[in-house]
Amino acid sequence: MSRPDRALAVPDEALMRQARARLDSLTKPAGSLGRLEALAVQLVGIMGRLPPSVAQKVVITMAADHGVTAEGVSAYPSVVTAQMMRNFHAGGAAINVLARQAGARVVVVDLGVGVGTANMARGPAMPRAAAGRAVEQGMEVVAAEMAVGADVIGLGEMGIGNTTSASALAAVFTGHPVAAVTGRGTGVDDATLARKIAVIERALAVNRPDPRDPMQALAAIGGYEIAGLVGVILGAAQARRPVVLDGFITGAAALVAAALEPGVVPSLIAAHCSQEPGHRLLLQHLGLTPLLDLQLRLGEGTGAALAFHLLEAACRIFTEMATFAEAGVAERPSC
Amino acid sequence: MSRPDRALAVPDEALMRQARARLDSLTKPAGSLGRLEALAVQLVGIMGRLPPSVAQKVVITMAADHGVTAEGVSAYPSVVTAQMMRNFHAGGAAINVLARQAGARVVVVDLGVGVGTANMARGPAMPRAAAGRAVEQGMEVVAAEMAVGADVIGLGEMGIGNTTSASALAAVFTGHPVAAVTGRGTGVDDATLARKIAVIERALAVNRPDPRDPMQALAAIGGYEIAGLVGVILGAAQARRPVVLDGFITGAAALVAAALEPGVVPSLIAAHCSQEPGHRLLLQHLGLTPLLDLQLRLGEGTGAALAFHLLEAACRIFTEMATFAEAGVAERPSC
Repeated sequence: MSRPDRALAVPDEALMRQARARLDSLTKPAGSLGRLEALAVQLVGIMGRLPPSVAQKVVITMAADHGVTAEGVSAYPSVVTAQMMRNFHAGGAAINVLARQAGARVVVVDLGVGVGTANMARGPAMPRAAAGRAVEQGMEVVAAEMAVGADVIGLGEMGIGNTTSASALAAVFTGHPVAAVTGRGTGVDDATLARKIAVIERALAVNRPDPRDPMQALAAIGGYEIAGLVGVILGAAQARRPVVLDGFITGAAALVAAALEPGVVPSLIAAHCSQEPGHRLLLQHLGLTPLLDLQLRLGEGTGAALAFHLLEAACRIFTEMATFAEAGVAERPSC
Repeated sequence: MSRPDRALAVPDEALMRQARARLDSLTKPAGSLGRLEALAVQLVGIMGRLPPSVAQKVVITMAADHGVTAEGVSAYPSVVTAQMMRNFHAGGAAINVLARQAGARVVVVDLGVGVGTANMARGPAMPRAAAGRAVEQGMEVVAAEMAVGADVIGLGEMGIGNTTSASALAAVFTGHPVAAVTGRGTGVDDATLARKIAVIERALAVNRPDPRDPMQALAAIGGYEIAGLVGVILGAAQARRPVVLDGFITGAAALVAAALEPGVVPSLIAAHCSQEPGHRLLLQHLGLTPLLDLQLRLGEGTGAALAFHLLEAACRIFTEMATFAEAGVAERPSC
């Protein structure tokens, strides 16, 4: 099943007030660390833990292939998905480098590399039951990470063709026109971009995905890695762990997860805003403000890994700074 | 004297082309790491070094007091500057926490704590010769850091009243009206903000700072820590080291340094855009786009310390990622 089997906790408001009081006691003008302070408070609320800590960091990078690549929507051949899986395992991909820097583990999960979705332009990408199983796999991956002490979960993905699927999901769940939420992915030219938009329009016409039935929509126009990420989000939110979204594809998974269970949204942290035009629109739809805007468009979890540094900074500020009283610094404004 | 005694190197275009070619050979769509890739190329150009490396990081935090606080322009009393100096040395301030996280040293320099500037609303803040000596002190601090192997220099500052000085400098060097470049600093109320603007207007009327004579302007309405930071910028650019600006006050120092020597600008990296309204305007004037926008308004070098992570990420991507050939990943677009 795709929904958490118990109710999601709501952010702990009493603990968040305590966190704000602590931050205001530290040797800096109140609120002067801006979003770092807000992030510390959010982590406290999500985790129900004071002080906040994100010592154990993991990026869960899910991969799968997409039958829609048969329509010529990507700049790279599908075989690159499997080749990049080997690169992940060898430690040579961008996500390996940035996760090492962040002190995070990378967990690579094959949800359907080589044996991916059917071509959504001609029918459903997946049987509904298969989508449900992929969601469950995602929840199981989170459970395994919780068992080894994960404090924070970053999302990542790899799958040639998956911006096409993500754009279709973004159009359905945000209500924006396909052309507004479709971009160049790995870097397609104008003709391919026009074809990509037409292919997505066709997939929507053929499958009639219904945002009020998120599992139907996910099966019709999603991907196995996206379904897995939906499960990761549901499982992490249920376990009271912050979920750090990466780029456009992980954002599309968040749209599906939020449609299934709106209670996941307070657990989401948007690492960055990518160059895919649909990303900003879907973050707005979710009410999320990205931490970084570095014109990334790689995926894999790279933005999430970079944002871990800011979560860690928020926790360290909270725990390591001296208070006005400890440091003997005048707290009261003089005027 | 305030100008470098030898010509500044220009960014090494040939080496930057080599750097771009290397980045395009790595296992990611070309350009997909956005500003991280641009940063790697910029570091190569500044340092004249391939591969780029920022292993040895230092934040130079300069502090001084400001006579203009007699006009009631700050929310905190001047004594807080000295109190925060002790906090820096004890390791309890925000900059200590974020520098530790970044693996950077903090070098705290007292340029005039307790014995700061005169009240610029009634006459020049400093004698011109004293401003020159402070600039030289800054250059000497950089020279000492170079001697122990610094790869990258972050700027920081502390000085109750110094946003008033920075706003005056921003108005003079950018040409924007005082009201457009003056904000709430540590958090003053509406009445104090209005007084702050009036005090700056008075300081400009009394001193007639001339942007074509940057040392005269610096002496008239600057601060000792700002003059020291001007020297740090000049010295670091001369030594081919990237200078990571922090908030509004370090940005004002960059305006003065760039007026003295426009050749420093390619060595500047804007860590973040603060909540001070003048900061964005002065960064635009310098042609710099900030890496982070986290609504910080603390100073001390906190934004610079956070941005070090992104410089480090750019270097690691450059050196640690596998190439398409090494990883056996298809490089050629299929369509």
